Amino acid sequence: TIYAITPTHTRPVQKAELTRISQTFLHVRNFHWIVVEDSNTKTSLVTVFLKKSGMKYTHLNCRTPEPHRMGENDPNWLKPRGVEQRNTAIDWLLENVDANKNPGVVYFADDDNTYDLRIFEEMRYTEKVSMWPVGLVGGQMYESPRVDRNGKVIGWNVGWQPQRPFPMDMAGFAINLKLLQEKSYAKFSPKAKRGYLESSLLVNLVKMEDLEPKANMCTQIYVWHTRTEKPKLKYEVKDSDIPMEV
Amino acid sequence: TIYAITPTHTRPVQKAELTRISQTFLHVRNFHWIVVEDSNTKTSLVTVFLKKSGMKYTHLNCRTPEPHRMGENDPNWLKPRGVEQRNTAIDWLLENVDANKNPGVVYFADDDNTYDLRIFEEMRYTEKVSMWPVGLVGGQMYESPRVDRNGKVIGWNVGWQPQRPFPMDMAGFAINLKLLQEKSYAKFSPKAKRGYLESSLLVNLVKMEDLEPKANMCTQIYVWHTRTEKPKLKYEVKDSDIPMEV
Ligand SMILES: O=c1ccn([C@@H]2O[C@H](COP(=O)(O)OP(=O)(O)O)[C@@H](O)[C@H]2O)c(=O)[nH]1
Ligand SMILES: O=c1ccn([C@@H]2O[C@H](COP(=O)(O)OP(=O)(O)O)[C@@H](O)[C@H]2O)c(=O)[nH]1
Ligand SMILES: [Mn+2]
Ligand SMILES: [Mn+2]
Repeated sequence: TIYAITPTHTRPVQKAELTRISQTFLHVRNFHWIVVEDSNTKTSLVTVFLKKSGMKYTHLNCRTPEPHRMGENDPNWLKPRGVEQRNTAIDWLLENVDANKNPGVVYFADDDNTYDLRIFEEMRYTEKVSMWPVGLVGGQMYESPRVDRNGKVIGWNVGWQPQRPFPMDMAGFAINLKLLQEKSYAKFSPKAKRGYLESSLLVNLVKMEDLEPKANMCTQIYVWHTRTEKPKLKYEVKDSDIPMEV
Repeated sequence: TIYAITPTHTRPVQKAELTRISQTFLHVRNFHWIVVEDSNTKTSLVTVFLKKSGMKYTHLNCRTPEPHRMGENDPNWLKPRGVEQRNTAIDWLLENVDANKNPGVVYFADDDNTYDLRIFEEMRYTEKVSMWPVGLVGGQMYESPRVDRNGKVIGWNVGWQPQRPFPMDMAGFAINLKLLQEKSYAKFSPKAKRGYLESSLLVNLVKMEDLEPKANMCTQIYVWHTRTEKPKLKYEVKDSDIPMEV
């Protein structure tokens, strides 16, 4: 099973984003979607959406505590996003799934990225931690692990802060659930410096030499770190009209 | 058959966009995708992508002539986008498909929008021209036709320039192919003023009173005018590395 963890937060494009990634995920067999809302309660938009989605899913929620919350006009890089939500999903997996009975692979699938279906077939065979290139991220057309001719990861093709232990985006790796259960202390750190969030989890799990390169030995882009524009809402929809969920 | 016409142009996010909308379209039965590149020749990226996509498709190309082309830094509203491409696809349909033998409905599906699958089932039954709300467009959470209790379109819920003949986005209507073949002079005008592109085609085809409201009588949002951020590319990928198509 692929356990895909998606943090999500209320905003005008949320339903559109969930709609299009669910259409992607519906093509993937043995897929369990763990959706974690950044909110105090489960919203009706997400609850009803998931119910009708045709997906196998678990719906959780957890509001980012105040000191780490993004302000309405904060630039998006100021604070890490989706951290407590991903940890909440990891905790749920530790408590509710036994990797010996239901083996699987954990993937962090943000609601705005774009996924080629082939990445799911490749990540399925992750023994400990697998890694692959991500398109449109870090100020480059792609960031990628470097792989030597023996199929070992020997470094990184990364422009921004290449000295980080694992300078790769969240969308570029998957973890065998068994390893997460063995190292049950491994979590994302809400205090990680900018760019160090992925490393804060991975340093507890794996060494660079043990990474399993995927996406045809890191020669293909199967995931893109797309971001959706925030729509400018200048006009109100008049209240004489039927209120519609968007 | 649904004939979906998608103009598309070369840019960093193009392959990601085509990947995710093709995953949407793969869920739709009797679907024929007409992809029109804004280029002098068919690019290898789109050619190979379509070949592997699993879709039934036709691949065309037509470069927007110089006076109407967008400059690299033009704001996106300055010039209409995808106009000649959509007309090229209409011409192809007039020449290559006989609506009496292969009846169908024509829909203009931009590569960056988001589609709920239910809109395709509803538009399939368009007799002349059908219309429905579009989310996240025109500076509003949604724009929508107004429908009276007899199921007639009687106006518009639109904040920006409501005086236009058909103040609706490209993503909000579909046309029976037979009607397009009967009115073979109907085309999009490359000289249409800002916001009047949709009207420039529709005034030749239909009157407001004859529009067929869809999406449960225009009470549901099944299409969103999402837009994808242009990635900021600050770092070059080093040329010692394998060049990858992104
Ligand atoms: O306040 C927030 C901001 C973001 N997210 C989620 O966290 C993930 C990463 O956020 P985003 O895509 O904005 O980050 P970026 O694209 O900048 O990495 C996405 O699934 C968001 O829906 C969240 O739960 N709360
Ligand atoms: O120079 C261009 C710009 C856009 N498009 C295509 O035309 C459609 C509408 O463009 P866009 O989404 O940028 O417009 P907007 O979202 O502003 O309506 C999309 O399918 C684009 O790929 C094109 O063929 N040539
Ligand atoms: Mn994102
Ligand atoms: Mn668009």
